[in-house]
Amino acid sequence: MGLLENTIVSIGELDRSVMQEACSRQSSLTKPVGSLGILEDIAIKLAGITGTVCPAINNKTIVTMAGDHGVVAEGVSAYPQEVTGQMVANIVAGGAAINVLARHAGAKVVVVDLGIADRQHFGAINRKIKAGTDNMVHGPAMTRDEARASLEAGIEIVLREIDSGARIIGTGDMGIGNTTPSSAILASLAGLPADMTVGRGTGINDQGWQRKVEAVARAIQVNIPDPSDAVDVLAKVGGLEIGGLAGVILGAASRRVPVLVDGFISGAAALIAARIEPRCRNFMLASHLSVEPGHKIMLDMLELEPILKMNLRLGEGTGAALVMPILDAAVKIMKEMATFDSAGVSEKSD
Amino acid sequence: MGLLENTIVSIGELDRSVMQEACSRQSSLTKPVGSLGILEDIAIKLAGITGTVCPAINNKTIVTMAGDHGVVAEGVSAYPQEVTGQMVANIVAGGAAINVLARHAGAKVVVVDLGIADRQHFGAINRKIKAGTDNMVHGPAMTRDEARASLEAGIEIVLREIDSGARIIGTGDMGIGNTTPSSAILASLAGLPADMTVGRGTGINDQGWQRKVEAVARAIQVNIPDPSDAVDVLAKVGGLEIGGLAGVILGAASRRVPVLVDGFISGAAALIAARIEPRCRNFMLASHLSVEPGHKIMLDMLELEPILKMNLRLGEGTGAALVMPILDAAVKIMKEMATFDSAGVSEKSD
Repeated sequence: MGLLENTIVSIGELDRSVMQEACSRQSSLTKPVGSLGILEDIAIKLAGITGTVCPAINNKTIVTMAGDHGVVAEGVSAYPQEVTGQMVANIVAGGAAINVLARHAGAKVVVVDLGIADRQHFGAINRKIKAGTDNMVHGPAMTRDEARASLEAGIEIVLREIDSGARIIGTGDMGIGNTTPSSAILASLAGLPADMTVGRGTGINDQGWQRKVEAVARAIQVNIPDPSDAVDVLAKVGGLEIGGLAGVILGAASRRVPVLVDGFISGAAALIAARIEPRCRNFMLASHLSVEPGHKIMLDMLELEPILKMNLRLGEGTGAALVMPILDAAVKIMKEMATFDSAGVSEKSD
Repeated sequence: MGLLENTIVSIGELDRSVMQEACSRQSSLTKPVGSLGILEDIAIKLAGITGTVCPAINNKTIVTMAGDHGVVAEGVSAYPQEVTGQMVANIVAGGAAINVLARHAGAKVVVVDLGIADRQHFGAINRKIKAGTDNMVHGPAMTRDEARASLEAGIEIVLREIDSGARIIGTGDMGIGNTTPSSAILASLAGLPADMTVGRGTGINDQGWQRKVEAVARAIQVNIPDPSDAVDVLAKVGGLEIGGLAGVILGAASRRVPVLVDGFISGAAALIAARIEPRCRNFMLASHLSVEPGHKIMLDMLELEPILKMNLRLGEGTGAALVMPILDAAVKIMKEMATFDSAGVSEKSD
């Protein structure tokens, strides 16, 4: 078996007995049951993932995968392709939004070049598989071997971080044009028409949106991706960084490390990962609900409730980083609050 | 003029020119314009409140006001009245949810007894006006003088904190039964029937909900609060801690210090404050959208967009505390991100 197969077979179930213990603890704390809403849900899921009622979510790590997309030739993005490398350099230098939010959360950012079009790596870890995908409107974005290589690169990167101590992983993306393959993945896996899965990305106008819808529709028509074969979908209408992120998710799940899935592009990666091995959903938390209209459909398919609804649409892992302090808060509630007994507070009377 | 009138006349407008400067700065940062959603809105509003593009929101302070309610005699709460004092003692000892979340945010918690029914203060600052309100189903909850005293106590408390350096205030409440007067305030000020403003509070059953609706309807019928006179509404169907929180909001607004309004009870206080002086809305941020159905109506009346939608319904200031690190993040984005120029990133092409 290869790394991918070895990873998949290691992905297990949530620990229901520890989750039950976490629920009981929540009920003993000096607050009405359920009154902290999603904060309680997070704590209970983290308990089930880690097998510990109050896990230490140390060495927070955002893995931001970068790649370029041949489909930008169709005029689907508001920014020129060179921005992918420029923004990777910006992240490596510490000046991007993800750096600010990761520093705020006490998280490290790991930037990986899976397929920037330029020959350079701009300071990112070099796992370049090819210099950007091919234009999926005319044929597959990449070969099946390349798609598989992107998945395994993601697994390798995340396992290395976990071996170095990471106990929470956030996913992030950088790739001009990458909402287009993400929409194509969603359209293909959900069986939806292109115009239901395509949004404004970084901010295209009406004509740009129309070009994007046509590009997604044609990519699916030309390549006929097989929705029952997630690697086929990834290869034909996906992206290198999207495959890398799917690998990150599978790898973290195989080690029972919680993964904060960022927004729309990470959501497409999560869909691919969940089609490869549905149990990896056990280890995912959805950071936020993106402005991209297809994101809600993705989260419903993944059966994940977004933690934040703050109209974010930046990517890079910014949603994941913004949520990390909230995860800390959820665990601290479990760990530090007094119980009805210890504080001498009367319980509910009806 | 009294303290209340002096405070009201000091409340001003947002600084539009600094907000314009903050908007321009947002547009120069290396991200698509608007892509950080509510995080950008927060930063721009904080600039307008403080008159500084990147304000230092230091000495974070949650003011949690406690009071009891005569209307609990109608069976409107799932918890016995003694819990108000017990929970105040729990907060003073550091074991409540608000303590955990405030420590996480680096915030101080100031607990004030405005009207706990018990003779004691349970370690809270003593500003007891009376030992709980009277049962509003049979007559006014308090006199107009008592309502005014609660407002001025709130103003005094918050001005003292601001004089000691507080640059962000969160509001919090503790009072068994206090969703009932909050619903009555909303029903009165919005002109809505009781059943549209009453929710489940700490978790009452169907019969309890019905009793609560009847209590709100009867309180309004018996007292005929005048919606054009917010102090009259506060006196007749409000609460001592609600008046205190309205005072906190007015006081903070008078010093141009941002106020994070917590959930439903704080929302009722914000409605009272906004009817006393509409400009105080300039200085409010809505922490979150509560599970209480009336909260959405309140926020629409206040024209505030909630930052979090996490199904919280605990009170104490927990929503405000949970949002404080997000405010820090919003300011850091403005302060620390690279610009397109400084990072050499190409700008949008269409």
